Amino acid sequence: MSGQSNEMVAKQFVDFYYQTFDTNRAGLTQLYTETSMLTFEGVQIQGPQAIQEKLTSLAFKTVKHSIVTMDVQPASASGGQGILVFVCGDLIVDGGPQTLKFSQVFQLMPHPQVAGSWFVQNDIFRLNYG
Amino acid sequence: MSGQSNEMVAKQFVDFYYQTFDTNRAGLTQLYTETSMLTFEGVQIQGPQAIQEKLTSLAFKTVKHSIVTMDVQPASASGGQGILVFVCGDLIVDGGPQTLKFSQVFQLMPHPQVAGSWFVQNDIFRLNYG
Repeated sequence: MSGQSNEMVAKQFVDFYYQTFDTNRAGLTQLYTETSMLTFEGVQIQGPQAIQEKLTSLAFKTVKHSIVTMDVQPASASGGQGILVFVCGDLIVDGGPQTLKFSQVFQLMPHPQVAGSWFVQNDIFRLNYG
Repeated sequence: MSGQSNEMVAKQFVDFYYQTFDTNRAGLTQLYTETSMLTFEGVQIQGPQAIQEKLTSLAFKTVKHSIVTMDVQPASASGGQGILVFVCGDLIVDGGPQTLKFSQVFQLMPHPQVAGSWFVQNDIFRLNYG
C-alpha cells in the first residue's frame, strides 16, 4: 500500500478488518505479528496465535459491525512510522435484537519484511455499555 | 516519572488530565508539544496553542468526566518508546441531566527535553451517541 495516504491505508484496513471479522474471524490472524498486542474487554493478549484463539472463541455465532466514525492520525512525531486509527461503531451479535456500541483503536506499523504492507501492533477493543 | 510502569504513568496521566479538564482546561496546554495532534469529534488540530484554543472554546460552562475503563499498552514493538492509553467513560455537561458516553485514546511519548516526563503526541476524542 506504498504511496497511499494514512487515511487511505486506514480505510482499506478498517474495511478489511470488519468484513473479515464478520465473515471469517480466523482470517484476521495475518494482520498480527509476534509483537502485536490485543486488549479485548480488558483481557490482554499477545501474538498472532493467542489473538486468533481469543477472536475465534468469542461466544457468539454471528456478528455484524457497522462503522460510525473513523479518525486517523500519524502515530509518530518523526513521521511515517505508524498510523493510529480510532473507530466507533455499532455491532449486532446473533441477529439482535440489541445493538451494542463499541470503540476500537488500532496502531498500524509498516511490516518489517513486506514493503508496502502493514501489521497491527496495538489493538484495544471496548464495548460502550449504555 | 522515570522507573514507573506504563500502567502507573497512564493512571497518573489520566487522573491529571480529566481533573484538569474539569477544573481548568487551559492547564492542559502543558501536556502538548508542537507535534501533538488532537482530533476532537472529527476536527483535527495540531500544536499546544491551537489545542488550547479548541479546548477552552468548547460550548459548555462545566463538565465532569467519570472514567469507566482504562486500557494501557506499550506503543512500540521495540519497547519503551510510547504508551497507548484508551479511556471509556461518562461525562455530564452543565450539570446534566443527560449523561454522555465518550471514548478517548492518548499516545504518550517521553518528553525529549524533560527526563522522566511525558507529553501527548496523539489525542482522539469521540462522544458515543446512544
